[in-house]
Amino acid sequence: MSRRGTLYLLPTLIAEVPAEDVLPAGTLAVARRLDCFIAENAKSARAFLKAIAHPRPLAELRIVEIGHAPDPARCDEWLSPLLEGLDAAIVSEAGCPGIADPGAELVARAHALDLPVVPLVGPSALVLALMASGLNGQSFRFVGYLPQDAGALAARLRELENASRAGETQLFIETPYRNERLFAAALASCTPDTRLTLAVDLTAPDARIATHTIAEWRALPDARRPPLYRRPAVFALLAGPRSAPRRRLR
Amino acid sequence: MSRRGTLYLLPTLIAEVPAEDVLPAGTLAVARRLDCFIAENAKSARAFLKAIAHPRPLAELRIVEIGHAPDPARCDEWLSPLLEGLDAAIVSEAGCPGIADPGAELVARAHALDLPVVPLVGPSALVLALMASGLNGQSFRFVGYLPQDAGALAARLRELENASRAGETQLFIETPYRNERLFAAALASCTPDTRLTLAVDLTAPDARIATHTIAEWRALPDARRPPLYRRPAVFALLAGPRSAPRRRLR
Repeated sequence: MSRRGTLYLLPTLIAEVPAEDVLPAGTLAVARRLDCFIAENAKSARAFLKAIAHPRPLAELRIVEIGHAPDPARCDEWLSPLLEGLDAAIVSEAGCPGIADPGAELVARAHALDLPVVPLVGPSALVLALMASGLNGQSFRFVGYLPQDAGALAARLRELENASRAGETQLFIETPYRNERLFAAALASCTPDTRLTLAVDLTAPDARIATHTIAEWRALPDARRPPLYRRPAVFALLAGPRSAPRRRLR
Repeated sequence: MSRRGTLYLLPTLIAEVPAEDVLPAGTLAVARRLDCFIAENAKSARAFLKAIAHPRPLAELRIVEIGHAPDPARCDEWLSPLLEGLDAAIVSEAGCPGIADPGAELVARAHALDLPVVPLVGPSALVLALMASGLNGQSFRFVGYLPQDAGALAARLRELENASRAGETQLFIETPYRNERLFAAALASCTPDTRLTLAVDLTAPDARIATHTIAEWRALPDARRPPLYRRPAVFALLAGPRSAPRRRLR
């Protein structure tokens, strides 16, 4: 069998900062050596490759766009350069491919084709938010986006709060322009002693991370709340007194 | 109010590789500028600081050991340098503080004391495993360690498999010398079309990541399985036909 290419999973920036701030030299070295990229969005992939000063002219690189919801039927076509021996990287619009982002189907197909898969280190908003939340990181869950309908959203928030009573931190995200609506729904739907974390603009110089109980959030003047509107944010919640880490603090 | 110190969350290496391979220059710059470290294990923190060539003699650094299960009653004592205006970093033995590792209580107390908390980018075995698994990264859960008792372990594995039928990837870990026992239990307890990922020695040159169905793992010759014994590993599973990413591949 001829040499098969390696499929790298290449994290990208999650805020406008120098690439060296958040990407290891090891990750940058791989990114700069590759000619072939499988991108969620070709335009943002080009901007990223420019930001990391990829040594080849962008026009000479092979950048395939797979979109937000890649068609599973096209996985083999997208992976064909690897079968011919070329290395390639999946790049998402922001953060880690395959985590709260497309890419998993391609990776699954790569495993089925016995291609080597190598994940590279870079920023994950979920991990940074969880680390900095002070909530339980020994047991946690990421549930993606919550329902948009107001009633369904309130019910889902209460469901997540209940699920967290066993001590499992619940992480979720929202489209940035709906962040404030989600925050307001959490304040209205959850019980006063549940802790809620807002982690906004992670890795940016003006990143804001705050954890308060729902009661504390309700009492906090607007000016002291992290600004949420149209900013990338991660939400996390953990119900109060019955969860171990909180009880042990008191 | 006088200036309060910032509490950094400083990830460390998860394999014996040059620090630059997996830690961004931005993370290394913060680590090298600090004099005060709150360590899960003082000895491994010193080894880490030596590995990243911290510019000050190690003997001059303030390294406080908090252990694997830090006493919540001592959080204020450990955070006291920050109240005096010193910056400090929590460092775990490997990977990200507070994630599958101690630190969360200290971070929670730092939030209560209104200290700035800044998470730094570095390697997370859970994120790398999930990215490279090809399993669902839009919805996932980390459940930590599974029970040791054989019957309870089998029951827990089936419970996790059932929980994953809604499409939620289940991640778990084991003490390295018990990895093979856990792997054997998963092969014995789960259904043939459930997918199981082994991610071993992540970030090391000989890292191995493989995803197969339980049926495929059972049929695979031992020599083709990633070696597990006494190696750091992450396990992930996702039940078969009813989960979206798998169905969409077929």
